[in-house]
Amino acid sequence: MTQNTLTATMLLSCPDQRGLVSHISQFIFERGGNIIDLDEHVDEIDKVFFIRVAWDMGEFSVPAGRLNEEFQPLTKKFNAKWSIKLSSDKRRIAVFVSKHAHCLQEILWRHGLGEFNAEIALIISNHPDLGYLAERYKIPYHVFPVTKDNKIEQEEKELELVSRANIDTIVLARYMQVLSPKFVESSKHRILNIHHSFLPAFAGADPYKQAFDRGVKIVGATCHYVTNVLDDGPIIEQDIIRITHKDSLDDLIRKGRDLERLVLARGLRLHLQDRILVDGRKTVVFD
Amino acid sequence: MTQNTLTATMLLSCPDQRGLVSHISQFIFERGGNIIDLDEHVDEIDKVFFIRVAWDMGEFSVPAGRLNEEFQPLTKKFNAKWSIKLSSDKRRIAVFVSKHAHCLQEILWRHGLGEFNAEIALIISNHPDLGYLAERYKIPYHVFPVTKDNKIEQEEKELELVSRANIDTIVLARYMQVLSPKFVESSKHRILNIHHSFLPAFAGADPYKQAFDRGVKIVGATCHYVTNVLDDGPIIEQDIIRITHKDSLDDLIRKGRDLERLVLARGLRLHLQDRILVDGRKTVVFD
Amino acid sequence: MTQNTLTATMLLSCPDQRGLVSHISQFIFERGGNIIDLDEHVDEIDKVFFIRVAWDMGEFSVPAGRLNEEFQPLTKKFNAKWSIKLSSDKRRIAVFVSKHAHCLQEILWRHGLGEFNAEIALIISNHPDLGYLAERYKIPYHVFPVTKDNKIEQEEKELELVSRANIDTIVLARYMQVLSPKFVESSKHRILNIHHSFLPAFAGADPYKQAFDRGVKIVGATCHYVTNVLDDGPIIEQDIIRITHKDSLDDLIRKGRDLERLVLARGLRLHLQDRILVDGRKTVVFD
Amino acid sequence: MTQNTLTATMLLSCPDQRGLVSHISQFIFERGGNIIDLDEHVDEIDKVFFIRVAWDMGEFSVPAGRLNEEFQPLTKKFNAKWSIKLSSDKRRIAVFVSKHAHCLQEILWRHGLGEFNAEIALIISNHPDLGYLAERYKIPYHVFPVTKDNKIEQEEKELELVSRANIDTIVLARYMQVLSPKFVESSKHRILNIHHSFLPAFAGADPYKQAFDRGVKIVGATCHYVTNVLDDGPIIEQDIIRITHKDSLDDLIRKGRDLERLVLARGLRLHLQDRILVDGRKTVVFD
Repeated sequence: MTQNTLTATMLLSCPDQRGLVSHISQFIFERGGNIIDLDEHVDEIDKVFFIRVAWDMGEFSVPAGRLNEEFQPLTKKFNAKWSIKLSSDKRRIAVFVSKHAHCLQEILWRHGLGEFNAEIALIISNHPDLGYLAERYKIPYHVFPVTKDNKIEQEEKELELVSRANIDTIVLARYMQVLSPKFVESSKHRILNIHHSFLPAFAGADPYKQAFDRGVKIVGATCHYVTNVLDDGPIIEQDIIRITHKDSLDDLIRKGRDLERLVLARGLRLHLQDRILVDGRKTVVFD
Repeated sequence: MTQNTLTATMLLSCPDQRGLVSHISQFIFERGGNIIDLDEHVDEIDKVFFIRVAWDMGEFSVPAGRLNEEFQPLTKKFNAKWSIKLSSDKRRIAVFVSKHAHCLQEILWRHGLGEFNAEIALIISNHPDLGYLAERYKIPYHVFPVTKDNKIEQEEKELELVSRANIDTIVLARYMQVLSPKFVESSKHRILNIHHSFLPAFAGADPYKQAFDRGVKIVGATCHYVTNVLDDGPIIEQDIIRITHKDSLDDLIRKGRDLERLVLARGLRLHLQDRILVDGRKTVVFD
Repeated sequence: MTQNTLTATMLLSCPDQRGLVSHISQFIFERGGNIIDLDEHVDEIDKVFFIRVAWDMGEFSVPAGRLNEEFQPLTKKFNAKWSIKLSSDKRRIAVFVSKHAHCLQEILWRHGLGEFNAEIALIISNHPDLGYLAERYKIPYHVFPVTKDNKIEQEEKELELVSRANIDTIVLARYMQVLSPKFVESSKHRILNIHHSFLPAFAGADPYKQAFDRGVKIVGATCHYVTNVLDDGPIIEQDIIRITHKDSLDDLIRKGRDLERLVLARGLRLHLQDRILVDGRKTVVFD
Repeated sequence: MTQNTLTATMLLSCPDQRGLVSHISQFIFERGGNIIDLDEHVDEIDKVFFIRVAWDMGEFSVPAGRLNEEFQPLTKKFNAKWSIKLSSDKRRIAVFVSKHAHCLQEILWRHGLGEFNAEIALIISNHPDLGYLAERYKIPYHVFPVTKDNKIEQEEKELELVSRANIDTIVLARYMQVLSPKFVESSKHRILNIHHSFLPAFAGADPYKQAFDRGVKIVGATCHYVTNVLDDGPIIEQDIIRITHKDSLDDLIRKGRDLERLVLARGLRLHLQDRILVDGRKTVVFD
């Protein structure tokens, strides 16, 4: 598909029932929409239907501004959770970092290549260290040093900043602070984290050290949505790399960096292309 | 989905046009069919539409025997190539082998586990060597020794046997003879081959030797439909394994066996589940 | 290297010290041994030295029967743990199974192809189900039905059988009973298990169910030495396969079977080729 | 091993003969060298012996400056090709680029992280486009625009610059010009190229287009030494990524970028750590 056509993408989930694909595709067709991509899935255990459908808005009879209103009755009938995004809507991203540069670097670099249909609106850190990267790419960099005592106040300020900047998606790019339940709930399924292990193995601190001590032959990285249980949110993407007895802990960290970069970037791209639906503790990824 | 429901699966390709998903899904819905799986793809270069749709026949108003008749007008309107298969229709397979047992062994073993919704009707070979395997699994084993002089006559006999046995799908499981154009055309896109390299690298004879001599760090295997150009048909599935300078030619052959078995089995399963549409030299694989 | 030369392989570990490689290689050279493979590793944290060295016995001045005696003084000086195996010594294997055929089938099949320099002396099971496979390959099959009440007695009988049959290596090929500490200690680092997850994730029962419920995007299999902590022994080999939301629990089981077979076979081959040294909770694998 | 010890690494190849490991390790031991890594390989077909041995120079009785002289008699006796490098010797690298930034970016970024024990002395390009990256990392950037008419003169200038700057290793980081035989011979086995396919498949121009048109299910990247036959030099490292019918040519290019970056970086690191010996058309990689 050419990139300059205006397209709409609907993500919808609802209790499974007969005729959903037919109703939805007909609804779009009758309004002049040409479906350019449709993928669906049924969770057979919980009987939930998931669909992602994208259509060309070129000759669509409903103007972009009235899309939500138009689909309201249909989706209400299905008792659905749903959203519609336009290809022209650039999501606004905030990246949270601490001291490790590699994930931020990767996101900024790929963003420059046009891999993410989004705007990186700001970078938040508890350390000043990566300010140089923000400067290089001309993105506002906000430092909120966190101590045990000021954690709550600092997070309040971050939350306020995020809210004021109209942030849609938060990326924890090796951010070494645990977010409070309040923060997490404010952006449910819109906060992505990269954890440097193949979860659920080696959750928590120092996963490479854990992996090294356990003597595994494979290390991994996991991109997941953040929930209020640490490293337990719905998994978006994972990948692994082989290691051997020759690899020191430093080698694991070095090899793992490559994984973290790739897995976070892939997860973020899937999220920004509205390819992910959350199904309880799991994700449906229409890639 | 439970395995004992009767389902129908349609594969269809046609020139791309507006409303195809909508028309097809509505057509099925109006006749009481509950769509349980739908996947579509558009070749943006050649403007061809591909769809795979599966539906529950439980309350479908059209009896299985009249499905083709019923869909005829719709598909004619679309100028489509199409087929419909029922989950109750077991495809009849002929496996062609020479002397290597591993691919045949794998197919028979998986078939016993119920991985293939098909019947292995017969095994054809130019050598008697693998008769013991056929016997073990109680499948007719036909030997047609091939020489330069009798190649054409022997193939005629094989073709006749295949035709009489109502064979739908032919699997070349390391069969060391090249089929004639006549044979290939008799079963277009229904003959699967396993080639022991990541095509297009190392087409032709002795691919492991070629790979060994070239010093590659990866060897592969390719499952593809047979056409009249050697090792050039539409690729269904490929996979690879890493090798090092320590691996001898025998090691490549040993490691490659594992790949060949897995890649052929995966390709065959995709084919038997009607997940493959041929798009010129390529395949669309709805997995 | 040609397969029919007599070679000796020494595995040795000892506190790290200067000159180990030099002393060992010189010791072999001076006795007419041509080193055909040497690999070494130093655990930099615990300062332990590991070496695997294989040499041609063709012109070695020490007869095979006196090898241990000859190396005794050298290895004593190093305070080493060590062993020497001859390529002509076929290890005797006992395979333990329950009802799943795939791992046993794979081992028998590969053994038939000559992939394992060993003799499969007997198969032990707590169920009669896989007797047909044993019969097919003409290997004694012993059934010891296990209940809560007779577990200890039955294991005693198994142990006695194993001992009487001069078994060197035990392979738990999806054997669904936990061995007692006594049994485990009787064959330290000579009992291999295949666990159907990428350990340490999903240890214990039903790992595919655990993986399915957690919504991981990758499943794995792990071959490890058995210790008295369940699924916690030194890891020999691991591998993974990607899954998606489309995969049902049955799909995970089906895909996992392929992994289990390959990973167990690779681990067993490494063990039989004397390529593994245990380093605390880890392994050094000279592949 | 700690990074700040001075170590020497010898790479040596010679006709295979009895006692090589013993002689070499003893030679080092007798001079007070503690071997910290030793790996060897025998090409059984051509009867060539390859060894990489690294030792601690801390108490070595031969000063760094006299190493070559000291080993001369030994290596002469073996009729060996050999080299010795000290960990303190930083190799000087020239990176050649055209317009694609990703491989250069990756090398510069990893260099900043200390992954390469080398100095990036200069960047040469036939286009001014990537000057900004050179400037960012403060590395001299030299532009030599190439036309059909001036190709030879420009290359002469490049060669002179490379020679004057004492360059040891040349990295073609998606450099779109073919080097002349004279240039290639001036730096035999010291010029690394990244080719964006799994060679030998899709050698030459536009490999992603070739892969897309062929309909492969896997694309790859290959890092190899440059010889005078295009894309035919000894392969150092390869890796692959899976693609599907959904991937457009642009997707292949995007996914391939990740591969190219990783494969080139891995290959370069292996080269800089003296882990590669060339064996005719192949490489021995001691990783």
